[in-house]
Amino acid sequence: MIIDALQYNNWSEKIFNQLREGGVTAVHVTITYHEDFRETVENIIAWNRRFEQFPDLIRPAGSAEEVQAAASENRTAIIFGCQNCSPIEDDIGLVEILHGLGIRFMQLSYNNQSLLATGCYENEDPGITRMGKQVIGEMNRVGMVVDMSHSAERSTLEAIEISERPIAITHANPSFWHPALRNKSEQVLKELSQNGGMLGFSMYPHHLKDKSECTLESFCEMVARTAELMGADQIGFGSDLCQDQPDSVVEWMRNGTWTRERDYGEGSAGQAGFPEQPDWFRDNRDYPKILIGLKEVGFSDEEIEGISGKNWLQFFEESFGALKPNA
Amino acid sequence: MIIDALQYNNWSEKIFNQLREGGVTAVHVTITYHEDFRETVENIIAWNRRFEQFPDLIRPAGSAEEVQAAASENRTAIIFGCQNCSPIEDDIGLVEILHGLGIRFMQLSYNNQSLLATGCYENEDPGITRMGKQVIGEMNRVGMVVDMSHSAERSTLEAIEISERPIAITHANPSFWHPALRNKSEQVLKELSQNGGMLGFSMYPHHLKDKSECTLESFCEMVARTAELMGADQIGFGSDLCQDQPDSVVEWMRNGTWTRERDYGEGSAGQAGFPEQPDWFRDNRDYPKILIGLKEVGFSDEEIEGISGKNWLQFFEESFGALKPNA
Repeated sequence: MIIDALQYNNWSEKIFNQLREGGVTAVHVTITYHEDFRETVENIIAWNRRFEQFPDLIRPAGSAEEVQAAASENRTAIIFGCQNCSPIEDDIGLVEILHGLGIRFMQLSYNNQSLLATGCYENEDPGITRMGKQVIGEMNRVGMVVDMSHSAERSTLEAIEISERPIAITHANPSFWHPALRNKSEQVLKELSQNGGMLGFSMYPHHLKDKSECTLESFCEMVARTAELMGADQIGFGSDLCQDQPDSVVEWMRNGTWTRERDYGEGSAGQAGFPEQPDWFRDNRDYPKILIGLKEVGFSDEEIEGISGKNWLQFFEESFGALKPNA
Repeated sequence: MIIDALQYNNWSEKIFNQLREGGVTAVHVTITYHEDFRETVENIIAWNRRFEQFPDLIRPAGSAEEVQAAASENRTAIIFGCQNCSPIEDDIGLVEILHGLGIRFMQLSYNNQSLLATGCYENEDPGITRMGKQVIGEMNRVGMVVDMSHSAERSTLEAIEISERPIAITHANPSFWHPALRNKSEQVLKELSQNGGMLGFSMYPHHLKDKSECTLESFCEMVARTAELMGADQIGFGSDLCQDQPDSVVEWMRNGTWTRERDYGEGSAGQAGFPEQPDWFRDNRDYPKILIGLKEVGFSDEEIEGISGKNWLQFFEESFGALKPNA
């Protein structure tokens, strides 16, 4: 079972077929970067049309049981999530509404300061805000996972501490391997795992050592070092694959409507577009290669089963349901 | 000429008549506390109906010239402003749109962290955010005044520094007189005045020494001390009058939709509602008493003319127009 905890592709029948060829059982797909509630609902409607159009390839999933059902049906389970808290606008009541619409992950911030937390591109990180504390409690209650992939260090540490349920960093790598702003410190990774959280390894070139030139061996050695730090049962994949997207999309991800200047984020004026994927992960059909790479750096079959999917499945099992009143 | 730089009344013909009786030439009225863009537009529509219904008492104003026209027409000029940046949502393009709709003041935050700046009720204040810097530039360009009345200390100091045009604190008092969270430090007031900014004195009991029991003499002495600090030409009134509002409104101001607990803001569980106004400022008809009080603490007639209205008029003259391309 392979589970990928973050993709934002320009979805098509071709990509759904590649998910099947690669043996991918479930994908957490990004519904929102900057969209507000109403725009997020529109993106869910677009997914409803895809589910109607490709019923043999994909199905929606909001629970571990539905992911397992997808596996037995030979389809890929699609799990919804948001990379920003923009869909709840300034209304805590929208957390429960969005859970009802199938959203299972929400980042407390994207790259900038949000109403809840700080993004990794701000100069200062004051931690979780007053509203942020309230919203974490509500996400815990209804069963929506706090995702801190794009958040800054202090906000992330505070979210781990404040959240009563394990949180996730769905797509990032350790900064000891590649010190990108988006990658995570050892302290964050340790506290994440000590609190039952999960890390999804990114295969987005800006998060990789040597970027597009990164080797599979280097990636798998990094996975092994991270397993020593966090345990092999609290890591998985979160590729951040943005397949077939035009460069206008990465410009929109970075700039949204918040600035009148142009922000290049992880890129630069000279390399403003999407970077080229490493040759060992062009698309979902390459997943079997990565499993072989993990074997070669010494992981056992059982550990590889966990990293490739069972760890995320276990996390979904514990995270997607409402807290019981007496729990 | 009397100008009041902040009121949020439950508007009625009675109150418009009281403005006329008190000789109030212009009022900056709050259009938005938590409302988004569309809800703000709805509040402007409600004002359009009032302008139609009471053409002999009020008129809209978006410039110093229109305020002067109101004076000669014997009407009260109504200037629109927002106590939060919620109406621009996450879209910098809405700054110019809102200026086109008549908005002339916008607070970068209300009590909590916003996308732009920090409110005075947060534990931490990281200063102006990435988006905040962009939005201040855009407000400068189109002629919308940065108002930091509810913002925290560091954010306020940074806004003064970043803004290329003078900013305002439309409704607050010095904390040397009454150390409320909403009142302002000497450093803030000094830097505000050194950069050409204006302070409007609040008559909201939580901002007054001895609250509802505050005396007119104490208030006027505080004005005199502030004039020594800031200059008599950079201070005015911003009463924060919330006349005829039910207590449900102050609960909404404090809690909006951001929390599932109940926040009492400047109040407390025992005193959750609006506080009683001091006996020397029950409503706009009391303004002449305050002018006498200012005379009694030693202000000259010319200084009183400035504090009561001409200072704000001068500030409007310099602040409400677009920056010229070559200016």
